[in-house]
Amino acid sequence: MCQLLGMNCNVPTDICFSFTGFTARGGLTDIHQDGWGIAFFEGKGVRLFLDPEPSAASPVAALVKQYPIRSRNVIAHIRKATQGPVGLENTHPFRRELWGRYWIFAHNGNLLNFSPVFTGPYRPVGETDSEKAFCYLLEHLRLRHGDTPPDQAALFATIAEVARELGSQGEFNFLLSDGQALYAHCSTRLTHIIRRAPFAKAHLTDQDVTVDFSEVTTPDDRVAVIATTPLTDDEVWSSLPPGSLWLFADGEVVRQAATVAAPPKKTA
Amino acid sequence: MCQLLGMNCNVPTDICFSFTGFTARGGLTDIHQDGWGIAFFEGKGVRLFLDPEPSAASPVAALVKQYPIRSRNVIAHIRKATQGPVGLENTHPFRRELWGRYWIFAHNGNLLNFSPVFTGPYRPVGETDSEKAFCYLLEHLRLRHGDTPPDQAALFATIAEVARELGSQGEFNFLLSDGQALYAHCSTRLTHIIRRAPFAKAHLTDQDVTVDFSEVTTPDDRVAVIATTPLTDDEVWSSLPPGSLWLFADGEVVRQAATVAAPPKKTA
Repeated sequence: MCQLLGMNCNVPTDICFSFTGFTARGGLTDIHQDGWGIAFFEGKGVRLFLDPEPSAASPVAALVKQYPIRSRNVIAHIRKATQGPVGLENTHPFRRELWGRYWIFAHNGNLLNFSPVFTGPYRPVGETDSEKAFCYLLEHLRLRHGDTPPDQAALFATIAEVARELGSQGEFNFLLSDGQALYAHCSTRLTHIIRRAPFAKAHLTDQDVTVDFSEVTTPDDRVAVIATTPLTDDEVWSSLPPGSLWLFADGEVVRQAATVAAPPKKTA
Repeated sequence: MCQLLGMNCNVPTDICFSFTGFTARGGLTDIHQDGWGIAFFEGKGVRLFLDPEPSAASPVAALVKQYPIRSRNVIAHIRKATQGPVGLENTHPFRRELWGRYWIFAHNGNLLNFSPVFTGPYRPVGETDSEKAFCYLLEHLRLRHGDTPPDQAALFATIAEVARELGSQGEFNFLLSDGQALYAHCSTRLTHIIRRAPFAKAHLTDQDVTVDFSEVTTPDDRVAVIATTPLTDDEVWSSLPPGSLWLFADGEVVRQAATVAAPPKKTA
């Protein structure tokens, strides 16, 4: 399995602190050694750093940790290969264009019997179930909504529909963004925190590093961080319920939906 | 205008030497200060580094210069903005997927009256004529050849056809690769060199740096380097004729075609 990290903010924010703890899991404090990647939106553009080397030893990861790229939507991933060999083409996050915007996708899980036939313009380049799921999702969005992006409610509903369908075929935790908002689907394991004023100190779980957010923020800043497991050991993180899709915009939750049927009510 | 750099080899080769001279043109020895980018194929995967900052001062460019990423197909670009403001979404090279392969494109020139209407799946994200030309080219390839990539001869012929059409609308020097081969179109200005055994020393034009290729190669290595202007001052570079498309594979020229009508023969 893999590890996911996402950030959605109301002002461009650097992810150096969270990324420092996160990359330690790529071979140092955890076993996710099969590559890593991170995507930063800057307006409609995307910087995408990918490396099939373990993140803990990657010169590119060292650069990203030190170079404060400010972004309102970030998605990062470290990989423990399940489907598809270790290689650049199988390294998350994946990027495609739809409706004149780049979309970024990263997945944690395993869709064991997912073998779609692709007839449209989105074809997987690598061998992962994850990239297949991303292509399937984009194809579905394009078929459902045609040439023009729908409003946020309709877009969220279609993404929830695909999350429901693919989530029934295996573990399907994912992060998705078009640079305007960030979608987080919890199939089994995903947690989040929203940092806002009054800001306090925080200490990483995976490295002995502390940051005082009050020194690097303004009172109006709002930052949502979503991760497979909590990145700090002195803050309160909230688990997303298994089988739920969340939409983060401007650093807060703006929509959520269940993607599994509610368990039948017990009566006695 | 911008500057292009491409490399196509028969074995994975690092581009550190050429890139060192090339990036000096982004604000140090020349005026191309409006961003830069470089794409490295590794198998079917691509590493794409983009930065809207001048390359001469970019920490990401410093990393690329020092970190020997080995690749058989590389495309780099430094920008002097003509159409589209400075920004990440307008920074070359551009990347899209077609037929389950990533395609990389960078352009030097200016297509002044090029305003295509896009109705297919490839839509520009930024505002450059270059990204529009790339989307137009991919759309054309997909419409002409359908869901399956054609053989090399047919693919080359279609790309030449688009180069001819768009080349008639303005300056259209470009580099294009799907990771298997590299296409170079000279509209006004593009030069190249093929390095093979016996290898010798070479000295950069833009920096006082010399490399002895005989120390870093094997006798079977073959490396084609294509650039807007020669990168070294002690080797023989050959200009590509204006109005010609070239295909490089395994470090040598495998196809070429004229993309302008031959001038009428003078009779007396």
